[in-house]
Amino acid sequence: MITLHGYWRSTASYRVRIALGLKNIDYRHATHDLRTGEQKTDAYLALSPQGLVPTLEEDGAVISQSLAIMEWLDERWPKRPLLPRDPDDRAVVRSMAQIVACDIHPLNNLRVLTALREELNAREDQVQNWIGRWIQEGFDALEILVRRHSGLYSFGDDPSLADCCLIPQIYAANRFSVPLDAYPKLVEIADRANLLEGFSRAAPERQPDSPKEFRRPRKPRS
Amino acid sequence: MITLHGYWRSTASYRVRIALGLKNIDYRHATHDLRTGEQKTDAYLALSPQGLVPTLEEDGAVISQSLAIMEWLDERWPKRPLLPRDPDDRAVVRSMAQIVACDIHPLNNLRVLTALREELNAREDQVQNWIGRWIQEGFDALEILVRRHSGLYSFGDDPSLADCCLIPQIYAANRFSVPLDAYPKLVEIADRANLLEGFSRAAPERQPDSPKEFRRPRKPRS
Repeated sequence: MITLHGYWRSTASYRVRIALGLKNIDYRHATHDLRTGEQKTDAYLALSPQGLVPTLEEDGAVISQSLAIMEWLDERWPKRPLLPRDPDDRAVVRSMAQIVACDIHPLNNLRVLTALREELNAREDQVQNWIGRWIQEGFDALEILVRRHSGLYSFGDDPSLADCCLIPQIYAANRFSVPLDAYPKLVEIADRANLLEGFSRAAPERQPDSPKEFRRPRKPRS
Repeated sequence: MITLHGYWRSTASYRVRIALGLKNIDYRHATHDLRTGEQKTDAYLALSPQGLVPTLEEDGAVISQSLAIMEWLDERWPKRPLLPRDPDDRAVVRSMAQIVACDIHPLNNLRVLTALREELNAREDQVQNWIGRWIQEGFDALEILVRRHSGLYSFGDDPSLADCCLIPQIYAANRFSVPLDAYPKLVEIADRANLLEGFSRAAPERQPDSPKEFRRPRKPRS
């Protein structure tokens, strides 16, 4: 049985929940409240020395970093692949995913925003500009790449690693009120993806550790 | 023939140069001076919409993002692999690489330091603390993981994707005078890797676009 160490609002954890859902893999949640520093306990640090989420455990294997976890899932459970077969196509999907995972999200996660506030005395309007700026720079490029390569999803007609990263980043943009008018293709694809159970069940508000005031009930199955 | 769009001092370009060198793949340099914004010309943006380096071109394929480029090289030129064969091992190597590529480097590259200075009015001592902080947080974890899994190199006895990311990050740490005393294993492995031609020829000071005052001649072959 897989255990996913995560947090409802961590967008990196959200990516992995989508990948697990798309592949229909059962797993157990282990939650670590990032606001109270639960990811820095000795027990968790012994497992995952960065003290970040997500980390995946399965039968002795311990894997951190969301992209590494999703690649591992794709190698171990090759059905419903997250990457196309052709190396050139795989490279495009990986580079889309990494625009989000390397050039947007690392600049905007909680530990970085806390450093801006506490060490650089950034005001809230400056933090808000900082967040919006990196989302926009990344999405400017991603909108172009997705227009070049999309079908129903970011690359072709099947959900991929790119969508596992895009949809949580759209969620974060909405959470921080970053305008998305300039990215109609990204929004269209996110809206379509969110109709799939693999994406909708991974949403932060559907997670067992989400606070009641955010909780969204699962839609009844029709 | 492969063209690598890069810049001598870009550590993400440096990673790809190492991967190309380890696989003994010939390539042509196309340099874009990041200090003067040469990576934002219309011609380069048409090729690579993020306007960042590195981007690799080969026979119609255009790939951005250093991790995506290195995975593509490994799939297209499988000799001298950059990843082990077992999925659990591959995941460990990828997560080591991503500690550098997702959690250290994106916070310290030129566009981010410029934003700290210009938009948050950060003083130089604050910028220096910012740089050191993310290197130390990442290396604290990487030192532990590398001790668990290393042989001669970061994972086992062969250079891997993890070393392609580690060695340029050690270079950056030295450049910014970040102390490395707490990371003897990482330094030991970097010193060993730098004895290999694949690593030494990729060094910033050996690149044709490095300014003369930094240039280091190639060692004569013995």
